[in-house]
Amino acid sequence: MTITHTEKYTTAHPSVPTAFEKEAGLPRVIVLGGGFAGIEFVKTLDTTKYRVLMLDRHNYHTFQPLLYQVATAGLEPDSIAQPLRKIFAHTPNFYFRMATVSHFDTKSQHVITDIGHFPYDILVVATGTKTNYFGNDALRLSTFPLKQIPNALDLRSQILQSFEQALQETDPAARRAYLNFAIVGAGPTGVELAGALAELRTHILPKDYPELDFAEMEVVLIENMPRVLATMSEKSSRLAKKYLEQFGVKLHLGVGVLSVDGTVITLSDGTHIASHNIIWSAGVTGNAPAGFAKDLITPANRILVDAHNQVQGMPNIFVLGDLAAMITPELPRGHPQLAPVAIQQGVALGKNLNRLAANKPLKAFAYFNKGSMATVGRNKAVVDLPNNMTFGGFMAWLTWMFVHLLYLVGFRNKAVVVANWLYSYLTYDRGTRLIIRPFIKSKMAAGVQEAEPVI
Amino acid sequence: MTITHTEKYTTAHPSVPTAFEKEAGLPRVIVLGGGFAGIEFVKTLDTTKYRVLMLDRHNYHTFQPLLYQVATAGLEPDSIAQPLRKIFAHTPNFYFRMATVSHFDTKSQHVITDIGHFPYDILVVATGTKTNYFGNDALRLSTFPLKQIPNALDLRSQILQSFEQALQETDPAARRAYLNFAIVGAGPTGVELAGALAELRTHILPKDYPELDFAEMEVVLIENMPRVLATMSEKSSRLAKKYLEQFGVKLHLGVGVLSVDGTVITLSDGTHIASHNIIWSAGVTGNAPAGFAKDLITPANRILVDAHNQVQGMPNIFVLGDLAAMITPELPRGHPQLAPVAIQQGVALGKNLNRLAANKPLKAFAYFNKGSMATVGRNKAVVDLPNNMTFGGFMAWLTWMFVHLLYLVGFRNKAVVVANWLYSYLTYDRGTRLIIRPFIKSKMAAGVQEAEPVI
Repeated sequence: MTITHTEKYTTAHPSVPTAFEKEAGLPRVIVLGGGFAGIEFVKTLDTTKYRVLMLDRHNYHTFQPLLYQVATAGLEPDSIAQPLRKIFAHTPNFYFRMATVSHFDTKSQHVITDIGHFPYDILVVATGTKTNYFGNDALRLSTFPLKQIPNALDLRSQILQSFEQALQETDPAARRAYLNFAIVGAGPTGVELAGALAELRTHILPKDYPELDFAEMEVVLIENMPRVLATMSEKSSRLAKKYLEQFGVKLHLGVGVLSVDGTVITLSDGTHIASHNIIWSAGVTGNAPAGFAKDLITPANRILVDAHNQVQGMPNIFVLGDLAAMITPELPRGHPQLAPVAIQQGVALGKNLNRLAANKPLKAFAYFNKGSMATVGRNKAVVDLPNNMTFGGFMAWLTWMFVHLLYLVGFRNKAVVVANWLYSYLTYDRGTRLIIRPFIKSKMAAGVQEAEPVI
Repeated sequence: MTITHTEKYTTAHPSVPTAFEKEAGLPRVIVLGGGFAGIEFVKTLDTTKYRVLMLDRHNYHTFQPLLYQVATAGLEPDSIAQPLRKIFAHTPNFYFRMATVSHFDTKSQHVITDIGHFPYDILVVATGTKTNYFGNDALRLSTFPLKQIPNALDLRSQILQSFEQALQETDPAARRAYLNFAIVGAGPTGVELAGALAELRTHILPKDYPELDFAEMEVVLIENMPRVLATMSEKSSRLAKKYLEQFGVKLHLGVGVLSVDGTVITLSDGTHIASHNIIWSAGVTGNAPAGFAKDLITPANRILVDAHNQVQGMPNIFVLGDLAAMITPELPRGHPQLAPVAIQQGVALGKNLNRLAANKPLKAFAYFNKGSMATVGRNKAVVDLPNNMTFGGFMAWLTWMFVHLLYLVGFRNKAVVVANWLYSYLTYDRGTRLIIRPFIKSKMAAGVQEAEPVI
């Protein structure tokens, strides 16, 4: 492996602020994305040997596995997000800019963003994935994604507003459309969200909405594959299915979605479901900036990399985490798109660049599988260990919580999440049922009618 | 005092949901607004004698005195807001609807909202105040208010984004416009916000933005009156001024604002201040729904009420709190627009309606002045006691915190706020520096230029 250093980085730009002058001469590393891969890479990198610029369109790292708890009023966003500047406050030669990246140009070695061009010597792309709508605009406009904190806050407002709307709806079918929650995709996000909504129905919402009949509320989980959690073991799928049914989630397995139009989902078995709350968690696609040759991009929009996460024909460009497709005979579709892979690749590349700076040979990436897990709700989760052992129930639930706290960034966040979980567990309550981002279209303009009588 | 009951309320509407039928016949009380006056009124009212419908455009009660801490990344919104449904989960005959009230009609006895008309027998208007822009649209568009939680979140994003923008700005004057914070109005909100911003400058932001020179950041407080905290004692004003100056806040006292145009404020003494962060806390005006006769409305848009908070000529309409102007010889401009007044009037009206239900005579409202207070920042506050005693410094600061925790609604909120305050005090850190509602206008469309070099 060779890294081509440009002439440029050895001389400071004439208008470089004083702060940079002392580091002039160090190779410039630009990291795109402050997810797990990006932050673990920078944490590992010896930044006395490199200057690092991280670009992200948010100023914070998001702990995506707990987004569904923000969406269901269990946690506030601050407890699952960490400002990137805070994470690296004590890292020398680290710089951050909040920017939306458009593309990179390998000739001039620049990243092009909405706030300008930035030159690099080494580019690390860790931009992850985005929700996959398969190019279907009706789908995108009619459904709620759950990838970012603003999505989770939008969904929280939508869920709570649906109950407010249902109160004023006398037509039973129209009211059910507000009380139906349809989740497409039974991966961990879909399963965890379905479980949390079922819990809201049992323990939380009836206290808030005594006027509603919660027998009318339905949580529906739709999955193309014949089982939930298809990437986990068959036993985990079976257990998770049992738990979901215990919580009263209605499952449509082995059934595809033919169309989503406004508030109506049509399934491949002919079923129609009317819902104002359609959540799309049926897949992601690579979120790469433009600049990669077509033959480097997989059908899932991931970027082909070698065992050093290096891109073929681009010796100074590396791709990490969910976006990277490191194809091997054992992994013909690359690694699973999971946080542990991203973390381990970030660390591995950090160490490799440190070796490069010390003129030592690089090491190939080897994934250490720690297993996988998903929670369904109160006291119920499933865990697959790497030795093909599977367990469920209360112990799995404790394991799930422990592991998620371990990966959550920031001591303060861990403390806040533990406190919230304890509170919710003991009181059967949720703290944050606030509608802060309302979507309600005012009916004032359309002419006011007699309201459904309340008192 | 007499309350005119309509025929209507004695018979249930044909489509009234089952839940209401048992209460049919009880007088219908509609409460507009879930602020302090509204919630204390309902808490005091005997709701086995009345049916209550509360209308609010938010589904939560906001603890306004701590909004400035949300705006300065010290607290998350969930800790200063309480869902209204949760507050009254155990109150019989209580109903809530999230609605924007347009006006009320005394002939048909209906409140007209964006979700329909609602009939009332007794109407309690507790809609408080809104930011007063004196009809100046340029002012409204160029400044940030701080009355509601969305305002505070917008301001938090704006503050943090200003620093992100300043990093890319090489022209010193343009950069200073991002680093200048101009607060107009030195009432409690203005003083507390100025203190909190000064604290951010000293303890928090230099860690996040080591590239910026914080000598370039200025916090400016502008006040028309010759002193800060003009509604408090002269001694409190003097002390608060001293504290503000110690924290490095630049004061412009006895100076009016001639104009605000985009990012430039022009003061009556000819000073121009350029700032992307102009905060308007220079006054409020009554936020009454339409329906009151003109001669009932004071110049401050408050509604004239008698000693029972009853509106002249409208025997079944009551106005409470900030919106009510209860003029007496001692109080020619009505009570101060403070939480304790709102709380006491809410309780008093609740008791009076309970007396009415028991055919007992009503009591006139008497305000029990508990004093007033404001905080400036770490270890610094001022307290005026009702006996004309004033004290400041650390003891005042502890008193301020204790009293605010006392009034904060919800045990969970109190616990969360205490934890956050302890954390901030001990670590000189803030937890929630997230830019969740970005206002940045993408520069992508305008053509991309070379960025200021970072690394």
